[in-house]
Amino acid sequence: MKVILEPIGKIVDARKYEDLLKVCRKAGINILSECGGIGVCGKCKIIIKDQEFVSKHTGVEKHHFSKEEINEGYRLACQTKVLFTEGILKIIIPKESISEKRKIQSIGFEREIQIEPLIKKIHLILDKPSLFDLRSDSQRIIDSIMKKYNIHNLEINFDILKDIPNLLREYDWNVTAILWNNKIIDIEKGDTSKLMYGLAIDIGTSKIVCQLIDLINGETVNIAFEENPQIPYGEDIMSRITYVITKENGLKELSSLVKESINKLIEKLCLEKNINPNNIYEAVIVGNTAMHHIFLGIQPKYLALAPYVPVISESINISSKKIGLNINKNANIHVLPVIGGFVGADAVADVLATGIYELDEMCLLIDIGTNSEVFIGNKNGILAASCASGPAFEGMQIKYGMKAISGAIEEFSIKNNGEVIYKTIDNLKPIGICGSGAVDIVAELFINGFIDNRGRFINIKNPRIIKTDKGYAYIIAWKNETAMNEDIIFSQEDINAIQLAKSAIHTACVLLMKKMNINEEDIDKLFIAGAFGNYLNPINSINIGLIPDIPIERISFVGNTAISGAKICLLSKKMREEASFITKKIKFIELATDPEFPKELANSMYLPYKDLSKYRSVEERLKNRKVTNF
Amino acid sequence: MKVILEPIGKIVDARKYEDLLKVCRKAGINILSECGGIGVCGKCKIIIKDQEFVSKHTGVEKHHFSKEEINEGYRLACQTKVLFTEGILKIIIPKESISEKRKIQSIGFEREIQIEPLIKKIHLILDKPSLFDLRSDSQRIIDSIMKKYNIHNLEINFDILKDIPNLLREYDWNVTAILWNNKIIDIEKGDTSKLMYGLAIDIGTSKIVCQLIDLINGETVNIAFEENPQIPYGEDIMSRITYVITKENGLKELSSLVKESINKLIEKLCLEKNINPNNIYEAVIVGNTAMHHIFLGIQPKYLALAPYVPVISESINISSKKIGLNINKNANIHVLPVIGGFVGADAVADVLATGIYELDEMCLLIDIGTNSEVFIGNKNGILAASCASGPAFEGMQIKYGMKAISGAIEEFSIKNNGEVIYKTIDNLKPIGICGSGAVDIVAELFINGFIDNRGRFINIKNPRIIKTDKGYAYIIAWKNETAMNEDIIFSQEDINAIQLAKSAIHTACVLLMKKMNINEEDIDKLFIAGAFGNYLNPINSINIGLIPDIPIERISFVGNTAISGAKICLLSKKMREEASFITKKIKFIELATDPEFPKELANSMYLPYKDLSKYRSVEERLKNRKVTNF
Repeated sequence: MKVILEPIGKIVDARKYEDLLKVCRKAGINILSECGGIGVCGKCKIIIKDQEFVSKHTGVEKHHFSKEEINEGYRLACQTKVLFTEGILKIIIPKESISEKRKIQSIGFEREIQIEPLIKKIHLILDKPSLFDLRSDSQRIIDSIMKKYNIHNLEINFDILKDIPNLLREYDWNVTAILWNNKIIDIEKGDTSKLMYGLAIDIGTSKIVCQLIDLINGETVNIAFEENPQIPYGEDIMSRITYVITKENGLKELSSLVKESINKLIEKLCLEKNINPNNIYEAVIVGNTAMHHIFLGIQPKYLALAPYVPVISESINISSKKIGLNINKNANIHVLPVIGGFVGADAVADVLATGIYELDEMCLLIDIGTNSEVFIGNKNGILAASCASGPAFEGMQIKYGMKAISGAIEEFSIKNNGEVIYKTIDNLKPIGICGSGAVDIVAELFINGFIDNRGRFINIKNPRIIKTDKGYAYIIAWKNETAMNEDIIFSQEDINAIQLAKSAIHTACVLLMKKMNINEEDIDKLFIAGAFGNYLNPINSINIGLIPDIPIERISFVGNTAISGAKICLLSKKMREEASFITKKIKFIELATDPEFPKELANSMYLPYKDLSKYRSVEERLKNRKVTNF
Repeated sequence: MKVILEPIGKIVDARKYEDLLKVCRKAGINILSECGGIGVCGKCKIIIKDQEFVSKHTGVEKHHFSKEEINEGYRLACQTKVLFTEGILKIIIPKESISEKRKIQSIGFEREIQIEPLIKKIHLILDKPSLFDLRSDSQRIIDSIMKKYNIHNLEINFDILKDIPNLLREYDWNVTAILWNNKIIDIEKGDTSKLMYGLAIDIGTSKIVCQLIDLINGETVNIAFEENPQIPYGEDIMSRITYVITKENGLKELSSLVKESINKLIEKLCLEKNINPNNIYEAVIVGNTAMHHIFLGIQPKYLALAPYVPVISESINISSKKIGLNINKNANIHVLPVIGGFVGADAVADVLATGIYELDEMCLLIDIGTNSEVFIGNKNGILAASCASGPAFEGMQIKYGMKAISGAIEEFSIKNNGEVIYKTIDNLKPIGICGSGAVDIVAELFINGFIDNRGRFINIKNPRIIKTDKGYAYIIAWKNETAMNEDIIFSQEDINAIQLAKSAIHTACVLLMKKMNINEEDIDKLFIAGAFGNYLNPINSINIGLIPDIPIERISFVGNTAISGAKICLLSKKMREEASFITKKIKFIELATDPEFPKELANSMYLPYKDLSKYRSVEERLKNRKVTNF
């Protein structure tokens, strides 16, 4: 039967006996659920007025809802099954049932890996020293681990030596040793072998995302994120590096800001799950090269000066105490390797998480952010490029642009009859336009003939097109529809900002395909990664030429693969080795030195591209809408 | 010709054309000379009144002395040659020409080893980065070293990453990399590969000795020492541990004192030789287990409580910055392993330096100090014991006892005619008695029949024997001979203190021989080590039963082998591995648990021992002197 999801207004097909949690997810609604759909968490609340179309209340539902709520039609989506094949069912999804995480991609595609963290916890009941057993405390621990687990060449962290003698005696020789890579980094009282956590951290130019991970089963226990507190010092990397170079203690200042922010996230993650931060024994960190250098307190100056070389490219292991993260004081901080000045540890994580370096198929991987990275290749080799796509996709540099938060227009379309449809995050009255909305707007204006392939307004005899002192603009939402009683418009300048951003990414794709000697049709898989990428409409992305014209079934939105890459490295020693291997396998292409770069950049400014024969599907759609204005 | 050395009064034969530096050394005078006898250092000043017996002033002498000095007869010993075969030449050796080091054993027996330090310096002229060579700064350095020296798995110390980008550019890519064990710990401008120093440090309970060593040729460049500044907190180990346990911050306080003292020594060593402390890249440290723990800031409490186990026994590598030594900030501090609570890193160094663990011959090694260590064995295995011999041999607990400094009686004998002969350090009027003097006194009183085999005064009808309120005493020097116009006496209590000290060492020797199932005659080599040991009269040491009755040709005085062991570990990676191997090869025997311990301790209180048949040579000497008083 047809299910109408309110207040979003989406319609989706449901099979008989299908539960409504699945139905909602099929419709792309990121409904909250933490128990895997068994009715325990009580998060997937929906409201159904016509209860005759669905299964009866289950026992767990009666437990979660009051009588009043049941009378109002409250149900748990996971417990409610569609009973018929035909007909229409209307369900209301309350705001609180929709994941707040929805618009921040803090998870990504995850490969299956063998869980084999570098952290090990070993419970030991030690022999007490006597005149007949005079071994030192350290030797006693090492011998015991060696005997039990046959681990050789063990070392003890110097910093715990101060505490070991008192602790061993206080704990009556019954302790759990924590090992990192054959180094004993801490001991705890009794058997604590079940408490073993790690962190995966992605330091983005705009956002810092932090996952708390159970190192025993590899599951993500909690997620938190925050805006990068360096933003006030420059929205893009170059301005932050300039700040570091020109201000005394600038590096220390920006470095501390990030660390404080991560510490806040750690506190939140642990508090919410009642986990002791001392039980976090390792963190794996990714980020672009500038974020990587600044976080580590390494001079980023030469990342801003030709030829833009990093100080260090190898992975780094360093103690949490030295870095200043508030987890176990002897925890290891592992920072993934970087490839070059513009292709950082986050890019290594992208490639690692998607596994394209192992595939036979030819892959294109685009990680869209303020800086975007593009990779083309497979197990035979990978080319990489970086481009400054700018913050337009983050809603910046757009007159009514905003971040992807409540009230942002995130979807937009113009129907054949000229009617405008938009959707805001959390279905509130619109207050602005986020990145995915902006891509939709430019695509729809283009496909419907309001702008030409250079992005210029042409079909201006429409009531929604107005003239401002900065040129024409299109009214996306009339002032009576908006939260601030003011027209939300999309101007000529806004269109150009999106063109600039998309042309940077497109140019990277074109030049890398040329270097690789392949065409669009040779690409078997296109992975779109990044916090923003996941919310893109793929057809509209093709329509504006943000991505090459590739059949949409070959496109996968893989989300925040940077953090996925960090996570799998946290869980697997082998994956860290692969990360190093990847940096050697990837060849970085400096686009600026390519003689074709300026021409390609200009060609890519066109919608979707100067040579329309490269975008047959768009040509088709333009024909269907009978747009012939250019 | 005969040369009379004044003011010491020694007479020595000199060959024609022999230089006077050699002549003095032949006479056992530790005359200062730092240039190897080529006249450059100007330290070996002597005064000769009768210049007609010696060669004329050389050019370098004229450079070193003023006219006045030349008129006074000043010469450099190394430049002055004896001109005749017959006759008598009198020379005066001024106090400032005699090495102050004389009575502090800051060097020891040194094995021949292959010089192969863990520190390497590699001069590099790096390719500059360009758009066609985008390697990171670290990769650039690593590749260059790999290419030049085929060293793999190189890492860069995190702490220098901050400086590397600016330094490389400031130094125009012409640098010297400093490696420690495949880790790049620093870079310097241009080619500094000839400047490469290390430190060997022995932290003794009483003294801290520091050698500055050239890591290129293995030579000791300078030596300095100082009293252990912890002495005011307790002369022996136990009182210092008590201080640490009972005082808040006691551990930190005592630890800092040692570090400050070492830093002072480093400053002195470098200043005197015009060496930059930043060119010191490694230090190897030895010390007994308590000094080891306190230096490292590790709780020494359980070294004072049965069963006396150390916290850590393995060797430790730690950065100088972390420890707080003022050498290159990324230098490595290597602390040798310890064997047990009472057999420390100094003992490991003793065994390593003497090489007894590789010998076929059965060896006895005694390192005499406030705590003494005794080892018996060879390549087939070694037994070790420790004993609290106390500070009597350092001149403490003796009424007129003093350290081995100027004015101390260091040699003593009673001639057949009853005449007393003594010798003071620097030939000044006596002010007290140092350890070697005290051993001589007890031995001579015993052999000459003034005390019996229990150390009691017997033959009291001698003008030198007086009665005090604490029993009899022997006048060593009449008040008119002494510096303070006061008789220097050696009392019954003083004799007992020496007996106690020697009995502790002797008991260890006897019990270890029993465990090893050998007798005195099975011992092929006896090594006497320690700051004090070198000045002992071997026959007198046998006479009092400080050491077993072993033919003196089998005895070697090996000096401060603790520091020699540290030095060879500084110069050789292989020797560090051997040090670890030694700790496994040595079996520590806890003497206190041996049922025969109390009886042996009592027997060893006798002079030389209760069973005189174990001291045939002493029996012989007593017979020759016709002593039959017991």
